[in-house]
Amino acid sequence: MTDALEKDPLVLFMPSGKRGRFPVGTPVLEAARQLGVYVESVCGGRATCGRCQIEVQEGNFAKHGIISSNDHISPVGPKEKRYAEVRTLPEGRRLSCSASIQGDLVVDVPQDTVVNAQVVRKAASDRVIERNPAVHLCYVEVDEPDMHKPLGDLDRMKVMLEKDWGYSDLQVAPYLYPEVQKILRKGNWTVTAAIHRDSPTSRPTIVALWPGLHNEAYGLACDIGSTTIAMHLVSLLSGRVVASSGTSNPQIRFGEDLMSRVSYVMMNPDGREAMTKAVRQAVSELTDKVCAEGGVARTDILDSVFVANPIMHHLFLGIDPTELGQAPFALAVSGAVSCEAKDIDLALNPGARTYLLPCIAGHVGADAAGATLAEGPHRQDRMMLLVDVGTNAEIVLGNSARTVAASSPTGPAFEGAEISCGQRAAPGAIERVRIDAATLEPRFKVIGVEPWSDEPGFAEAAEKTGITGICGSAIIEVVAEMYLSGVISADGVVDGNMAERSPRILPNGRTFSYLLHDGAQKITVTQNDVRAIQLAKAALYAGIKLLMEKLGVDSVDTIRFAGAFGSFIDPKYAMVLGLIPDCDLAEVKAVGNAAGTGALMALLNRGHRREIEETVTRIEKIETALEPHFQQLFIDAMAMPNKVDPFPKLSAVVTLPERKILADGDGGEGGGRRRRRSRD
Amino acid sequence: MTDALEKDPLVLFMPSGKRGRFPVGTPVLEAARQLGVYVESVCGGRATCGRCQIEVQEGNFAKHGIISSNDHISPVGPKEKRYAEVRTLPEGRRLSCSASIQGDLVVDVPQDTVVNAQVVRKAASDRVIERNPAVHLCYVEVDEPDMHKPLGDLDRMKVMLEKDWGYSDLQVAPYLYPEVQKILRKGNWTVTAAIHRDSPTSRPTIVALWPGLHNEAYGLACDIGSTTIAMHLVSLLSGRVVASSGTSNPQIRFGEDLMSRVSYVMMNPDGREAMTKAVRQAVSELTDKVCAEGGVARTDILDSVFVANPIMHHLFLGIDPTELGQAPFALAVSGAVSCEAKDIDLALNPGARTYLLPCIAGHVGADAAGATLAEGPHRQDRMMLLVDVGTNAEIVLGNSARTVAASSPTGPAFEGAEISCGQRAAPGAIERVRIDAATLEPRFKVIGVEPWSDEPGFAEAAEKTGITGICGSAIIEVVAEMYLSGVISADGVVDGNMAERSPRILPNGRTFSYLLHDGAQKITVTQNDVRAIQLAKAALYAGIKLLMEKLGVDSVDTIRFAGAFGSFIDPKYAMVLGLIPDCDLAEVKAVGNAAGTGALMALLNRGHRREIEETVTRIEKIETALEPHFQQLFIDAMAMPNKVDPFPKLSAVVTLPERKILADGDGGEGGGRRRRRSRD
Repeated sequence: MTDALEKDPLVLFMPSGKRGRFPVGTPVLEAARQLGVYVESVCGGRATCGRCQIEVQEGNFAKHGIISSNDHISPVGPKEKRYAEVRTLPEGRRLSCSASIQGDLVVDVPQDTVVNAQVVRKAASDRVIERNPAVHLCYVEVDEPDMHKPLGDLDRMKVMLEKDWGYSDLQVAPYLYPEVQKILRKGNWTVTAAIHRDSPTSRPTIVALWPGLHNEAYGLACDIGSTTIAMHLVSLLSGRVVASSGTSNPQIRFGEDLMSRVSYVMMNPDGREAMTKAVRQAVSELTDKVCAEGGVARTDILDSVFVANPIMHHLFLGIDPTELGQAPFALAVSGAVSCEAKDIDLALNPGARTYLLPCIAGHVGADAAGATLAEGPHRQDRMMLLVDVGTNAEIVLGNSARTVAASSPTGPAFEGAEISCGQRAAPGAIERVRIDAATLEPRFKVIGVEPWSDEPGFAEAAEKTGITGICGSAIIEVVAEMYLSGVISADGVVDGNMAERSPRILPNGRTFSYLLHDGAQKITVTQNDVRAIQLAKAALYAGIKLLMEKLGVDSVDTIRFAGAFGSFIDPKYAMVLGLIPDCDLAEVKAVGNAAGTGALMALLNRGHRREIEETVTRIEKIETALEPHFQQLFIDAMAMPNKVDPFPKLSAVVTLPERKILADGDGGEGGGRRRRRSRD
Repeated sequence: MTDALEKDPLVLFMPSGKRGRFPVGTPVLEAARQLGVYVESVCGGRATCGRCQIEVQEGNFAKHGIISSNDHISPVGPKEKRYAEVRTLPEGRRLSCSASIQGDLVVDVPQDTVVNAQVVRKAASDRVIERNPAVHLCYVEVDEPDMHKPLGDLDRMKVMLEKDWGYSDLQVAPYLYPEVQKILRKGNWTVTAAIHRDSPTSRPTIVALWPGLHNEAYGLACDIGSTTIAMHLVSLLSGRVVASSGTSNPQIRFGEDLMSRVSYVMMNPDGREAMTKAVRQAVSELTDKVCAEGGVARTDILDSVFVANPIMHHLFLGIDPTELGQAPFALAVSGAVSCEAKDIDLALNPGARTYLLPCIAGHVGADAAGATLAEGPHRQDRMMLLVDVGTNAEIVLGNSARTVAASSPTGPAFEGAEISCGQRAAPGAIERVRIDAATLEPRFKVIGVEPWSDEPGFAEAAEKTGITGICGSAIIEVVAEMYLSGVISADGVVDGNMAERSPRILPNGRTFSYLLHDGAQKITVTQNDVRAIQLAKAALYAGIKLLMEKLGVDSVDTIRFAGAFGSFIDPKYAMVLGLIPDCDLAEVKAVGNAAGTGALMALLNRGHRREIEETVTRIEKIETALEPHFQQLFIDAMAMPNKVDPFPKLSAVVTLPERKILADGDGGEGGGRRRRRSRD
């Protein structure tokens, strides 16, 4: 007997690497389940749903001591053959419910996104999202009614869901009570039930029913930003993203930035309702858009996950955000929210569910939680800085031992507001800038124009677009280049002395500007523009520094820029300006919409919901406004890159200017005055 | 130390009889909780809700070895004094949260219905309903927002609900998200939360919130009958029934009996919707009525429990009942239903819940389950027969070892339909009848008339009402009296030979009638009337007998008549006619609306929900139509009281006529023919 067991075939599943011995004849699906390898199945082993596909890897896997061969798996049987005829099964693929183990095997659970991928989507950060969605499709064959056993239709179905799928104590979405009879008869006593179970302490609930085999279910992952709403439509069964789209947040008509929207609520009796309606309407229209793009019916969407900043989070839930506009910035609800999609007026499947990630603090929202989940400072040992820059910068710093978070009031400068020639990223906007340190002459690139401004054909190409302004991200670059070329001092003063060397330095009242382009429109960077960027970057850096001090660290190992801003700026210039602390430049990465990636993770794996809920309770929140030291850090951070902090790693790759003192003491404003005085 | 413990005061709680020793200074409420004695408290020991009142019994309770005295409880302290001043505390009452144990005590937990009664309502059967409602009011004081601890308002409230009341992992009714902020501020950071937790496997859910202390919560218990809807409005805190009322089921306009309503659904495309709307509307109007009567706001109603026959159950839930009108009589839903009140269009508190008891079988509904719960055959060792007579009789028979149930198609005769002079119970209807066996002269009582028909003043009194017909229950009595006086034979044939003895026996075509009253209207009981009653009672008895045979018993120990019918008929006459098997007459009891009592029990104690859910799975359902033996039992039961079954206990108190054979063989119909032939 022991002998026989030792001779049981050895089966290795890839890519999980889980392995075990199983008696000859064990279905491969059964072996996977016993080992905890996630292989989807809707039909419960009837070889009809095709979700449980696997592939045998042939060869001698000496490292694992396995010679794997297609001869070591049972031949294609009649059920599998029928499936392959009706539905087509790709070459080499087998249905693991029907194929059984006959000898040693290396089994690949396909990683592609078309069918049953355990690994379903490479997030921006190249991490893998394991699937374990909150909604599970279960096909069952139900006994017909029997006068001798007067259990109801629904109750007989529950019996089979327990027998075949192990779900006991099932709740039922009430809208199904009037439907179950028709559905069972239409399916000739076969039915697919969608069962929602979010947390282990929730009772599983039947949220949808379809006659017969229903082999697809979708979910929405959505990031509601102040400016933009972004949405993914994803197959909950394969993990495949079938459509992604975005739309403007229509609340912009009530106010560009968050605080003006809060003011609108405070000053208009029905302001809150109007804004809730507007954002829900936009989410609904975006749902239409991704459904059309993906060819998916709304009724096939069974789950949805949202992230948002605190004010959007509150407005989306119908909560008055006024309290968030004033100290102590009290959230009405900070924990994760779980409800039905219809509770937030979202018409998906009538039983569809909604989950909102928790907020971290009054200014650090569910979007920051999503980004944290996606980037995972709490999952690793290195010190990670995660920054999401908007009107407020949300900052998370830490590692698996300890994580802290704060928001810092960067203001709208990074978004191009308050910048004299700022404009949004559109054709005609300057997006890249270089300044020759010797001549102080610039060259630049314009959105919609292929050549740089100093390359042949630029003028002709730029005629179509015009040269209309500087886009949000380029403002970082131009100010950094001005600093590197000596146009401005470390304290941010445009050096009027340079006017002697270059006609690009123009007097502008009592200060000076840099003329970036002289055409139909004069595009200049003024002293005020530089000041606005300095204020914004000082706020961001001071917030980061505060968190570093809390953790007692002098440097960070790796930096993640989340959000659109991070995707467009060059990490080198961000560091030259001192937005972020010194770090190996290769370790500064833009991760795109990390908040949306976090939403996607929580959609595809309910374990990630528990992970972020638990993580948020452990994140220590720092309120910058309450930290007496913040003011000094802010002042130090007005200088470029910083008045007191060294940037050794940056200095190794970029030659930073010698510190040129145009004014003593406190940098910017004082410097300006001093210089003006010296010119009087 | 051991010595000290032995000298700890001994406290005995009445009426539970639970006792224990507690250190001097232990609050009485705490002692009660440790012993599992149910004492309500909303404020959590702050001496503000007044729900935890107790009374000290003074005296020497030798049996218990306790000398109890008001000196053995702490004197009234400042908090209790303040409560007594503001709210008034009845003489002798103490707040158990504030009063502490100082010596041996006998403590009475008041049984009255005004405050905090553990025993809250005597059901018709004199049993006691212990309280353990699914909704619990919990007052908490919530920390104010703190920038250093950015938990949301809701989340800080949850912290206190866990700390003070032990509720962890709380869910929240989504409508509260936008409300919680305002409510907490309005209550100056104090709040009362209503927490719903039905079964131990459900997550507790916050279903309602009020600023400050909210000291009352109500529930509805409702029985939806085909003809009448009955409702109780009950305090969930004290158990007091504050209003009870009834209304006609407006579905009557779609059809008098259940089957004609099913036909209406089958023949009208929007018939199901119309009937669902009608019954929900009636429940809503009845809710208004009990709320007005009890002076209760709808928003203070947090829970509701419904019972109904299977067709009403389905229509109320919006389920097409067509399947119930044809074999195999398949219920769409048989198990208990738990949902929100708003799911069935019932506007109570927005978070209010609804529970429907399970159905036993396609013809044995949640009403029968309610009656079973109320009367409890499954809770006792004696063999109990529980009968609810309507168009279908629902029959439950059994004891704690085994219980069986069936329905039997009695038809509408017992409700007065198909009876030539039948009418509903209203002034002018004959309600009691006696027939002199010697003279065959009747005397009777008329609804709305005080004297019997042979007493002085009857004629004058009856002038106001008239004498218009025989009400449903009296038809049992008159047929039984006709049998006892020899007007009809044991086979139910009106004896034409009697016409020679009395002018009351009138020929009526080929058969004879009995003239009960000769006035403005001739009120007669025809041969067809007797046949209708015989058919109905034979169906009922045969169903009962079938269940007795299933259990292998020859007799039952006790009989319960549920429903209006049972309240009006005389058990003796029911037995004389053979509606029910032989039994000690003192053991035949009418229990009124037992189904409604069952709903009330399930409302006041969620343990009763589990009890009936579990009981229903154990009840064996017998489908009379499928039992070959049923036909013979039915034929035997056509005779009075029965062709083959003896009635020894009945015979001991009522002289049953000698068996008079007017026709051989199979009783009724054959007898009639034979007699007619003999007169030809």
